[in-house]
Amino acid sequence: MGTEVAVVGAGFSGLAAALALARAGVRTRVLEARDRVGGRVLTRWLADGTQLDLGAQWVGPTQDRVNGLLARYGIATFPSAAHGASPVIFPDGRHAGAPEAAARVLDLLDAYAERVDPVAPWAGAEAAEWDRTTLAGWLRTAAPDPATARYLGRLLAGGLLAAGPDEISVLQLAFYLRSGGGSRALLAMAGGAQQDRIVGGPPVLAEALAAALGPDAVRLSTPVRAIAQDRTGVVVHTDTDRVEADAVVVAVPPTLAGRIRYDPPLPPLRDALTQRMPMGSAIKVHAVYPEPFWRADGRSGVAFCLAGPVTETVDNSIPASPRGVLTAFSYGPEANALRRMPPQARQASLLDALAAVVGPAARRPEEFVEYDWSADEWTRGCFCGAPTLGSWCGYGPELRQPVGRVHWAGTETATRWAGYLDGAIEAGERAAAEILARTGG
Amino acid sequence: MGTEVAVVGAGFSGLAAALALARAGVRTRVLEARDRVGGRVLTRWLADGTQLDLGAQWVGPTQDRVNGLLARYGIATFPSAAHGASPVIFPDGRHAGAPEAAARVLDLLDAYAERVDPVAPWAGAEAAEWDRTTLAGWLRTAAPDPATARYLGRLLAGGLLAAGPDEISVLQLAFYLRSGGGSRALLAMAGGAQQDRIVGGPPVLAEALAAALGPDAVRLSTPVRAIAQDRTGVVVHTDTDRVEADAVVVAVPPTLAGRIRYDPPLPPLRDALTQRMPMGSAIKVHAVYPEPFWRADGRSGVAFCLAGPVTETVDNSIPASPRGVLTAFSYGPEANALRRMPPQARQASLLDALAAVVGPAARRPEEFVEYDWSADEWTRGCFCGAPTLGSWCGYGPELRQPVGRVHWAGTETATRWAGYLDGAIEAGERAAAEILARTGG
Repeated sequence: MGTEVAVVGAGFSGLAAALALARAGVRTRVLEARDRVGGRVLTRWLADGTQLDLGAQWVGPTQDRVNGLLARYGIATFPSAAHGASPVIFPDGRHAGAPEAAARVLDLLDAYAERVDPVAPWAGAEAAEWDRTTLAGWLRTAAPDPATARYLGRLLAGGLLAAGPDEISVLQLAFYLRSGGGSRALLAMAGGAQQDRIVGGPPVLAEALAAALGPDAVRLSTPVRAIAQDRTGVVVHTDTDRVEADAVVVAVPPTLAGRIRYDPPLPPLRDALTQRMPMGSAIKVHAVYPEPFWRADGRSGVAFCLAGPVTETVDNSIPASPRGVLTAFSYGPEANALRRMPPQARQASLLDALAAVVGPAARRPEEFVEYDWSADEWTRGCFCGAPTLGSWCGYGPELRQPVGRVHWAGTETATRWAGYLDGAIEAGERAAAEILARTGG
Repeated sequence: MGTEVAVVGAGFSGLAAALALARAGVRTRVLEARDRVGGRVLTRWLADGTQLDLGAQWVGPTQDRVNGLLARYGIATFPSAAHGASPVIFPDGRHAGAPEAAARVLDLLDAYAERVDPVAPWAGAEAAEWDRTTLAGWLRTAAPDPATARYLGRLLAGGLLAAGPDEISVLQLAFYLRSGGGSRALLAMAGGAQQDRIVGGPPVLAEALAAALGPDAVRLSTPVRAIAQDRTGVVVHTDTDRVEADAVVVAVPPTLAGRIRYDPPLPPLRDALTQRMPMGSAIKVHAVYPEPFWRADGRSGVAFCLAGPVTETVDNSIPASPRGVLTAFSYGPEANALRRMPPQARQASLLDALAAVVGPAARRPEEFVEYDWSADEWTRGCFCGAPTLGSWCGYGPELRQPVGRVHWAGTETATRWAGYLDGAIEAGERAAAEILARTGG
């Protein structure tokens, strides 16, 4: 009969795990709660064919795993739109460059990142100190002035982790910077993590991975409720069925992994970790116009806002459509404030923020599409989960440590490009390798 | 037919909710995952009748609700043992008094507590600042020296919240102090929250509450897996059954409430709260000796340790038994370190800590009983859940806000003696009152 492995979750991590196992001759069954594959990616099409990427949307240099899969399956990319000035917008409405001192503070953080082992962030000499320090608290002394501190807090805790700077430890940020190759690689569009988009949207790649697994490898609309294991194997329980296997890869965020029942129950420290990696909080909205009118004004549509509900905007127009798409991101406390508003007021607040970037014409979009991943039962936040203050040191060793026959994947468990599609793939392949090493496969 | 309410969890909060509803003529069905009532209380009996309270064990003055129920059901209490000196034990082994400056810092924290509205801790003028400040960070400037900071960190984050001082916000601590009536009320044995114990153990009271509900009101060994609601009512799903009701009280800690499935799914901010209230981390061990030998040396057995795996010890002997019971508590990082040790080494480390308190005879107990609530699938930590840094302000309004027909109880939702048996009862009665107000019951 040979080895059989069940995979929980058909996001990029679960699909990559299944593919790596299948290539080694292991039979896999992928169980996916949603009626689609791909996890935290979703592309919606307007009637005229305009592509709106509602979830993860970018790939960039050094993301070798995702770029390799795109090449293998013949999926094209196109460069993110960037046609003019990309200002920082100050609370008084002024458009200007980033605070001058910011680069020096980023250099310091990149130096911290170099001192983090991405495989064991808890093990470094400075780990305990950095793990107990919030980014906001650190910036109060490391940044030379409050404006620079505010800028960097929104840029790093918000833009990278979809959280407030009071919620993120310096260690988590340093790990994240290390994992992605430094602040420039993470923050840049051209030359960085926001360089390219995927023709047809990221779901096209997920579908290609699923297709490569074969016609019946992924069962959709099949939430996993419980995982039992003993010395002979595992049994994965869904609402209607049970899947027997030799091992299981749980390829969902830690907080959602904690909502699965385990028999025997998870060890205390592993369960405690799942209580301490909340998902980020982001709202992503697309405003669609007849054309990208801002380009005629020499504006890129790319901006970073130091105040207000929106932290970042990008020109998300696609070459194949004449329409202009402006996408806004709101993070952490600002996203939560938006969630507490009635829909009309929320939309007005978001359009006001866009108007501050590209002018009053932004207030009259033809389409306005919001997507809140925190409302999505099978994601419950984005971009990813992050350890709370002190939790890297307290519970980090549990992040990838298998529990018997249960192995952990998901982009949160990656060591390279954690939080990204590329990290999801790395994590899945690593979990598969763990199982192959154990079974001699 | 009249109103019917389902209650999830037969801890003190769920039982109190059910009793309040039953008294108002509402039919209730209490569904309990465990094979016993009481939640975070558990009493084990040695062969000779010595009572070991493995979970919550104390009641004290101003805890009017729990004291009222004890009186109503005729359950006696007895004073905690305290027969001599209660030293602070310094890292060098020296026994002495608490650092002199500690009282002044406690006074300051009590003043903070006075400025917290326990109904809305997020609403105060200083809430945002206190919510983003760790207790450890605050103590670095508020305490006059590192020894005082270390003492207060262990005393307050550890002793009150079973966490490390880096994990707890000043706002959470100030709320907790306010909720219990100030640091003296919370920390004292005689005159405070550790004044009295319950003859027969706290489960006796839980069993009395369950009996008052009637013979079939509580269904044991019945975990609730899902709660569906629509405009006509709720359906509570167990592994084998469905219970229809007009409303439901979820009387389990927020992190465990997040592991129930909801249809429709919980709103984003409520779900996010359940991701941000991890349970504390405590290990409680009982070492049992032929007699409380430390009393002959003028030692109380009560001590506070500034270093090592154990933070606090108490003489937990009972009047009805000649044996001596020494109970040790380990919290947060120290408890986690113990969990990573093999059982033999863990026991040796704990007995060494007891020997530092009462002398080398502590190393030879007749019985040694550990209980780790983090390993308990239906509690997953103790004493209670606490909001992570920034989460009181970010998500606090969701703590008690009903979601349609779903109401929230559990001691974490209390405003008076939150985290204690008394708070559990308050929370249950408050949830019952919400339902009665809505149904006109």
